[in-house]
This record gives sequence, C-alpha cells and structure tokens, in this order.
Amino acid sequence: MASREFARGRRVVARLPFGADLLEAIATVAEEHGVKVAEIRAIGAVQRARLACYDQATRAYGEWSLDQPLELVTLLGNVSQRDGATAVHVHATLADYDGVCFGGHVARGCVVFACELFLQELAGGEPLERAYDDETGLPLWGNV
Amino acid sequence: MASREFARGRRVVARLPFGADLLEAIATVAEEHGVKVAEIRAIGAVQRARLACYDQATRAYGEWSLDQPLELVTLLGNVSQRDGATAVHVHATLADYDGVCFGGHVARGCVVFACELFLQELAGGEPLERAYDDETGLPLWGNV
Amino acid sequence: MASREFARGRRVVARLPFGADLLEAIATVAEEHGVKVAEIRAIGAVQRARLACYDQATRAYGEWSLDQPLELVTLLGNVSQRDGATAVHVHATLADYDGVCFGGHVARGCVVFACELFLQELAGGEPLERAYDDETGLPLWGNV
Repeated sequence: MASREFARGRRVVARLPFGADLLEAIATVAEEHGVKVAEIRAIGAVQRARLACYDQATRAYGEWSLDQPLELVTLLGNVSQRDGATAVHVHATLADYDGVCFGGHVARGCVVFACELFLQELAGGEPLERAYDDETGLPLWGNV
Repeated sequence: MASREFARGRRVVARLPFGADLLEAIATVAEEHGVKVAEIRAIGAVQRARLACYDQATRAYGEWSLDQPLELVTLLGNVSQRDGATAVHVHATLADYDGVCFGGHVARGCVVFACELFLQELAGGEPLERAYDDETGLPLWGNV
Repeated sequence: MASREFARGRRVVARLPFGADLLEAIATVAEEHGVKVAEIRAIGAVQRARLACYDQATRAYGEWSLDQPLELVTLLGNVSQRDGATAVHVHATLADYDGVCFGGHVARGCVVFACELFLQELAGGEPLERAYDDETGLPLWGNV
C-alpha cells in the first residue's frame, strides 16, 4: 500500500483573523512558518461558507454557497505541494443555529468569524507532491 | 498572522466513564495529568446531548438538548486557560440511529455512554490564555 | 479516571487504493508498519458506504448502506488490539452532493474512491487491548 513514515516537525497553533478567507488563511499560516507538509485540524465559526463536492461520474467539482453564519464543527485535512505551491486540502462539517449539518470540501469563499487551528508539520524526506491521478481525475499524492 | 510554535508535550489516552458529563470529564483528564494546553480528539457515544451555537449577531449562545442516545461521530477541540482555570472548548458531530447528524459547540449536559479520547499536550512557552475579544464577543486566545 | 500517557511513535501517511474496503485498508496500513496502537484521521471520498450505530438499549449494532458516492468529510478513530488482532475503530461523517451529512460507526462495506490517511502511533507500555465491558456491552479498552 502507498504509505510513508514521516518525522514529526513543528506544531503550530493559530488564531485565524476575523473576515479572512479560510483557505487562504491556512495557506498563509503554513507559508509563514515555512511548512511544506502538514496535517490540519480546526474548530470555530464562519460568517458564510462555500463548499464543494467532487462528482465521481463527471469528474468535476460542484460548488455551492451557504450565505449564513455557521459553526465550524470540524475542519480536517492537510497541506502538501502542487507545482511548487502550497496546496491546502481540507474538509469541513458546518452546522446552522438548529444544529443541522452541511459537509464537504472547503472551497474559497468561507469567511472566518473565529477559528482555532492546529497544524502539525510532517518533516523528513521528499515533501508530498500532488499530481494528476488517472483513476479518479483528482490531484492526489504521487510520491506518498 | 497570530500563530505560535509549541513544543510537543505528553500524549494521553483516556476512556471516559459511563455517565460522566463529557465536558467535565475532559477537564478532569487534563487536570489529572497537569496539562494546561492541549489538542483534544474523541469518538464514542452519548446517552443524551446538549449543544450550543453562538449567534454572531446577538453575541449570545443558544443551547438545545437532544434527549436521546447518539453516536459521538467526531469530537474536536482544545484545552487552554481562562482566568487561571482549565477551559475546554470542543465541537461535536453527533448522529442518531438513522445517521442524521447534529453539530455544534459542546455544552454541559452531554452524558457519556462510551468515549475514547486522545489528548496531545502543547508545551513550552506561555500557556494559551483566553481573553475577551471585542470583534466577536468571544473568549479567544489573547496570546497565541 | 482511566487514562494513560503514551510515548509518541511513528507517523505514517497513506493514500488508500481506489476500490479498497476502507476498514480493511486502514488495518493493512497499521499492519504493514507494525503498528499496534495508533490514532487515525482521514479525509477523502467513498464510492458507497456502510455505517453502523450501536443501540444502547438493545446492545446491538444496526447497520445500513448508502449506495451512492459520498465525500468522506471526516474520519476519526483509532487502532488497538483485540484477541491478538488489529482492531480498527473509526467513525465517519459523510456528505452527499447537496452537503447533507450522514454519520456513524464505519462498518465493512465502505469502498474507497480516494482517501488521505494519517496514522499516529502510540508507543511505550502495554498495547491498548479491547475486552468486553459489562456496563455498555461494547469491547472497550480494559487496560487504558
């Protein structure tokens, strides 16, 4: 199975700024600390959200907006590299004021209300790099 | 961006007691191990639940109860300090017997059926301390 | 409270194969790296899913299938030992193309579309071992 052991790197805690784009803010944290590969976890709230879902048949992402304040119940994912740039891949479960959940792939357009983020660097060896995968049509890790 | 690197501390695994209050049990684990700052993750089930959602407009938490057994699908969050006391901030996704999800901020009143908890201490430097944040009305980390 | 400190072990990143059974693939990663106790986290997508929920009154798992492609929004859980074998216990939140969430205990029958998995070994001391727990009817850790 495609798997690799990494050395533990640094552990970064961040408080993301009110009004920031969630995806961009995560990339900024990674870049400010010079982190190329990391695992990401966060909780908080967003002022509004934009999620995506990958259609496995058509191989295209569908995106939709949720134009309302939501709890960021869970954010889980990772930072790796794609064409020499920081690639943030995170999924989120959001909840409205009645506790109803919405889940998916985090797209640009999620606006931070408050967010407590943990980043665990994975160091040692070649950084994980995304490359086009024929079987799924997705940019998956080609060197895991 | 407000972010800080921490040294890794101890890693604690806990089995929370049947019938315990989920929030109180997490605080007890942290205190028994002398942990001031940590990341928290758990799965399990609750006998009943009480969740909250922060209303970003009125700046007040609304709380509601779910008086039924539920799977604790995901619990994610952290332990830090507030006014010298242990502050547990965790969010949860719960599911009923049909898989329907409810999500939010964990309030007092979630009663443990079974819970497998992982706590990763963040050591080194000044412990993260919550202080009132004007922009959101929330007790956010003032010294991240 | 039943809790124990562990030494940190190895950190493994895996890309699970297209078409694999999610539970079996996680066990394979652990076994290939000789890991007996670990925490598990993942995101990705499944071609179809099978979830379970433990009925706290009847003490039996109910299972159901979701015969459709779904985002694997969050997978959280652990690897420990039961009767000398690898025991994978993970919970998942899944979302359909409209973002509607389904959550529960991951059963055999979740077929991987793509999955990025992180495994953090917990080393040192006696491996966590599951044993029948009278109070819940579940195989919980008897030596945490």
